[in-house]
Amino acid sequence: MTALFDPSSGSGNTVVGSGNSVVAEPDEARLGEALRRALDGTLADRREAARAGFPTENLHRDPEQTIPEAREWVLARLTELADAGFGAAGVPVNADDTADPAAAVIAFELLAHGDLSALIKSGVQFGLFGGAVTNLGTRWHHDTFLPDITSLKLLGCYAMTELGHGSDVAGLETTITYVPETDEYEVHSQTPEATKAYIGNAARDGSMAVVFGQLLVRGRNHGVHAVLVPIRDTHGADLPGVTTSDHGGKGGLLGVDNGLLRFDRVRVPRRMLLDRYGGVDDTGRYASPIDNANRRFFTMLGTLVRGRVCIAAGGGIAARRALSIATRYALQRRQFTAPDRPDGVLLLDYVTHQRRLLPAIARAYALGFAQNELTAALVHVQGGGEHTEREQRQLETMAAGLKATATRFANDTIQECREACGGAGYMAENRLVGLRADADIFATFEGDNTVLLQLVTKALLTDYRQVWGDLDRVGMVQATARLVGGTVLERTAANLLVDRLVATARRRPEELALVDRAWHAYLFEERERHSLESLARRMRRASSRDFEAVNRLGDHMLFVARAHLERVMLEAFIAGIEACPDPGARDVLERLCSLFALSSISADRAWFGEHNRISTGRAKAISAQLNALCAELRPVALDLVDGFGIPQEWLGAAFLDAHPAP
Amino acid sequence: MTALFDPSSGSGNTVVGSGNSVVAEPDEARLGEALRRALDGTLADRREAARAGFPTENLHRDPEQTIPEAREWVLARLTELADAGFGAAGVPVNADDTADPAAAVIAFELLAHGDLSALIKSGVQFGLFGGAVTNLGTRWHHDTFLPDITSLKLLGCYAMTELGHGSDVAGLETTITYVPETDEYEVHSQTPEATKAYIGNAARDGSMAVVFGQLLVRGRNHGVHAVLVPIRDTHGADLPGVTTSDHGGKGGLLGVDNGLLRFDRVRVPRRMLLDRYGGVDDTGRYASPIDNANRRFFTMLGTLVRGRVCIAAGGGIAARRALSIATRYALQRRQFTAPDRPDGVLLLDYVTHQRRLLPAIARAYALGFAQNELTAALVHVQGGGEHTEREQRQLETMAAGLKATATRFANDTIQECREACGGAGYMAENRLVGLRADADIFATFEGDNTVLLQLVTKALLTDYRQVWGDLDRVGMVQATARLVGGTVLERTAANLLVDRLVATARRRPEELALVDRAWHAYLFEERERHSLESLARRMRRASSRDFEAVNRLGDHMLFVARAHLERVMLEAFIAGIEACPDPGARDVLERLCSLFALSSISADRAWFGEHNRISTGRAKAISAQLNALCAELRPVALDLVDGFGIPQEWLGAAFLDAHPAP
Repeated sequence: MTALFDPSSGSGNTVVGSGNSVVAEPDEARLGEALRRALDGTLADRREAARAGFPTENLHRDPEQTIPEAREWVLARLTELADAGFGAAGVPVNADDTADPAAAVIAFELLAHGDLSALIKSGVQFGLFGGAVTNLGTRWHHDTFLPDITSLKLLGCYAMTELGHGSDVAGLETTITYVPETDEYEVHSQTPEATKAYIGNAARDGSMAVVFGQLLVRGRNHGVHAVLVPIRDTHGADLPGVTTSDHGGKGGLLGVDNGLLRFDRVRVPRRMLLDRYGGVDDTGRYASPIDNANRRFFTMLGTLVRGRVCIAAGGGIAARRALSIATRYALQRRQFTAPDRPDGVLLLDYVTHQRRLLPAIARAYALGFAQNELTAALVHVQGGGEHTEREQRQLETMAAGLKATATRFANDTIQECREACGGAGYMAENRLVGLRADADIFATFEGDNTVLLQLVTKALLTDYRQVWGDLDRVGMVQATARLVGGTVLERTAANLLVDRLVATARRRPEELALVDRAWHAYLFEERERHSLESLARRMRRASSRDFEAVNRLGDHMLFVARAHLERVMLEAFIAGIEACPDPGARDVLERLCSLFALSSISADRAWFGEHNRISTGRAKAISAQLNALCAELRPVALDLVDGFGIPQEWLGAAFLDAHPAP
Repeated sequence: MTALFDPSSGSGNTVVGSGNSVVAEPDEARLGEALRRALDGTLADRREAARAGFPTENLHRDPEQTIPEAREWVLARLTELADAGFGAAGVPVNADDTADPAAAVIAFELLAHGDLSALIKSGVQFGLFGGAVTNLGTRWHHDTFLPDITSLKLLGCYAMTELGHGSDVAGLETTITYVPETDEYEVHSQTPEATKAYIGNAARDGSMAVVFGQLLVRGRNHGVHAVLVPIRDTHGADLPGVTTSDHGGKGGLLGVDNGLLRFDRVRVPRRMLLDRYGGVDDTGRYASPIDNANRRFFTMLGTLVRGRVCIAAGGGIAARRALSIATRYALQRRQFTAPDRPDGVLLLDYVTHQRRLLPAIARAYALGFAQNELTAALVHVQGGGEHTEREQRQLETMAAGLKATATRFANDTIQECREACGGAGYMAENRLVGLRADADIFATFEGDNTVLLQLVTKALLTDYRQVWGDLDRVGMVQATARLVGGTVLERTAANLLVDRLVATARRRPEELALVDRAWHAYLFEERERHSLESLARRMRRASSRDFEAVNRLGDHMLFVARAHLERVMLEAFIAGIEACPDPGARDVLERLCSLFALSSISADRAWFGEHNRISTGRAKAISAQLNALCAELRPVALDLVDGFGIPQEWLGAAFLDAHPAP
């Protein structure tokens, strides 16, 4: 393991970006720092050490660069990052080392504070290309390729998506055919739709690709496998049989050279197949440690889960950056005077403005705590220790769900922040529009969000069926209640606490205050439990062979996934507060958690009303309570964004640089 | 008036983009055309003629252009458009002609089908710069400047917004001081915040600016006025005392040269003041046809209402383009197979996908019908006939409200369409990301959307107070009921019909079907009436001098504005259906209208439940009804987007061009 993110090399007790000790700082700095440590969670020391070692001089690109200039800049930045150890972060150096997934995630999070093209290019190179070699390859692949991948001597592509098949990976049309005569594989794009599309490093920099396709051995299809294929010579020309082309302009990420790849019966030696989970052996026959083709497919994809964990993290950071910019601007910008404010009203003193930014900040905290648990689950599964197959599956479900949630949140939030900064928000120098353009595609790559949410619900239904399969109705309800408390989040420290909270609320929900956590936890559980239970009933009635019957449940499926993820976030938030030792920060976090919970309840209060979980009077009171929470948090707004751990100078926003940090 | 949009010069009976006659077309084409004529409304013939004369060869920019290239391209395109008569559209040619606002709006709508930088540059030049000269200037200004403005010999800026003051126009800090000694005005940027910002044509092309500032005459401030100030010489250099600078990169609209303007005691002759509503007369004293300074200010701003009408129209067209692209793509793209669909399921056959696109299409129709009424109101007020001050005010309210509604809808919809097209949607060649980037700022310019919605509510409250001022509670409720039926929409043809519908529903709301228009109309009116009434009560309790008390009503104010605008759209939709002579198209429009109405009700069904307007059972049934309406409309999805009147080739989307139009 690299020493880059070793906490002992960092300065654990100082505020990032300043040399002052905690004690000498005024209360405000202490609160911001305490919030940051709470949000950093168990990784606080490692994250702080990483921040201290992050090269921040070339954090942002000139937004007026042309595409060739942007690509050049990003490649140079990538080299700088690799030299600083970011390429090797988390990659085992020696054969006996285990991978350090936390280091990889922390590195990705940090890179998300700068140019997102550099982030995604690093994700393509180290995470996807390097990750596929690491996870799908064997010792020979590791020894032969990983050093050059982490040092950027070998730039590569992750060629999974095809023009015809994005979400439907099992339907890929590229073929990898074993040729016994020469002991080679022949890689071929069978149809126009088999063209690999949107592939990073394909247009310019990549000289090799991990190509996913159907493995055909002696006429039999063994399903999707991955093979290493050299695509360019040392002069950058396409190798024989390979055709690369350039997607050119995109909505953002202009520094990433996305392109298309086609293969016309390209031959590679047999050992180029990443054959950890299956391939042709020395006898010329297909062999795999996993007999069931379906299980093999999902096992292979499952090892690649880190990509989704990272994109979820990146989405969360992008949203935090936007909220930091918009909140700081709202604390300097005045518009219109009021009778008692002749100098003008600060934007953040308008309740409408508070309602735009503060609930989003609360949600960013909720997501951050959930992301910490996701990272912990990744470390548990991929960090070299023991883990069960069920834990692997739970990790995948949580990664899919939080990836969809975080990237949806990022897009919505950055746009809200852009608009909240008015015309200034539209100027590239203030960084919001570039962030928005770059983060847009996060909703699509590493899994289309709609498809991912359906995956979450399918996993919940599977768990559900395993419990209720043979139960009568009464037993079923009891089992459901147990199930919801005990599946995905069973590692959560707050679980017992939440169980107690919910038990309290079940006895007297209408007597509890609107900000009572027991009531929130009860409602979040009820929303998930009831919607999952009713979906399961509707699913049972619909034959799985009847496309239309299942199709009609689409919006119900999405509701269940969202309900589940809101609960995951609430419980993570509760656990995060429990773990926070600072009384002042705890107090603020409690209010933030209420703001998050009530915003979520308010957004679904039609559902809660229709299912008799909230009375009319209570529902009507929520909006006033949201206003009250915003008013309570308004004075510490700057601390809230300080808690995100982003020094103002990292934001690179011209209109903030014109004003000293408050 | 120019003959450009004279219907007699168009081919009224042909489908746009094809030479085929209606009779020879199959049913599908007839349905699309009938929908288009319904949506074009009373302007159908003029819009068709305009489409036929629209130069469509250079519709879209190469998305990889640099900023200088984009500006060059856009200026050339603007010249092409001016040569085709678009600069003069709606401008009176002779002194005795009246303006033709419909021609100007139709021209703007058409331009919104192409590059939006060209649209906004034309809006700056012809709409804002030319519009200010037309509306705030007098005969001398018209004769001297309009011919050169419409022919592009004189490019100009509309310098209203300042760094310190965007929404707060009354607070502008630029001064226009009369200098009696030389009979001149001195234009001066008093403070750094007085710098004119985000001004189109300021960075490169403008040689003159309409500058808004406080008019000071002999020590007295007469409020905001506008003055013409030359800013560049014929070589493009800043004139003495003028400092222009360049905003450079923006979130979009890269072909518009936005910049900053500062004035250091720049002198201009007295006649350069646009003095239709006030200025220094020959005796050296301030004179105005409007004594009250506040009224004068709002009168001057009111004449500029066309800008908001146009941006609302442009937002609507941008959303239609995105929906056309995404719907056509969803009818060619397949993903995943189903038991009975071995070739894969079309995206639009997924209920989740239908729910993303079809309700948005329904809303686009609703907005289109409302936009037609807005244009009619503009023609009524600015077309040279008689109109009352109240009608002017109603026009302004409707323009503010629909501008906010249409641009919010455009941003949300284009993004939804981008995501619905997956990775392909992110490629610049498919046009969605460029559209999204360009339309983003529509939410801010011509009035920040949040501020505009507050204006709408304030206008509703003013109307409301005029009625209930002296009434007791019973009389108040009756008056309110009358008021809601009779204010902003009193020119709506559907009004009587809607009154009857609502009266029916009031007697038996729970017996009506979910798709019954009477029930929809009743709910939309109830939502507006009740929320306005309760806001008025809360406002009465809050002293207007107490900033915080009014501030806390911010979200309530926004709710009222939205409720009002939803009703405006529903009633316009009902009127549009009434006016449609084609039975097939009427049937489709009825379903679309139900989809729009139920989507709106569903989004607010918490409110309806909490206010006892919808029972729990009914609320729960809405989602299934939405699915059913989507299923009914799915077979005519292509006709629905054909109804937007955008030939597939105008969309310029590469992934559609690769497939023949279905």
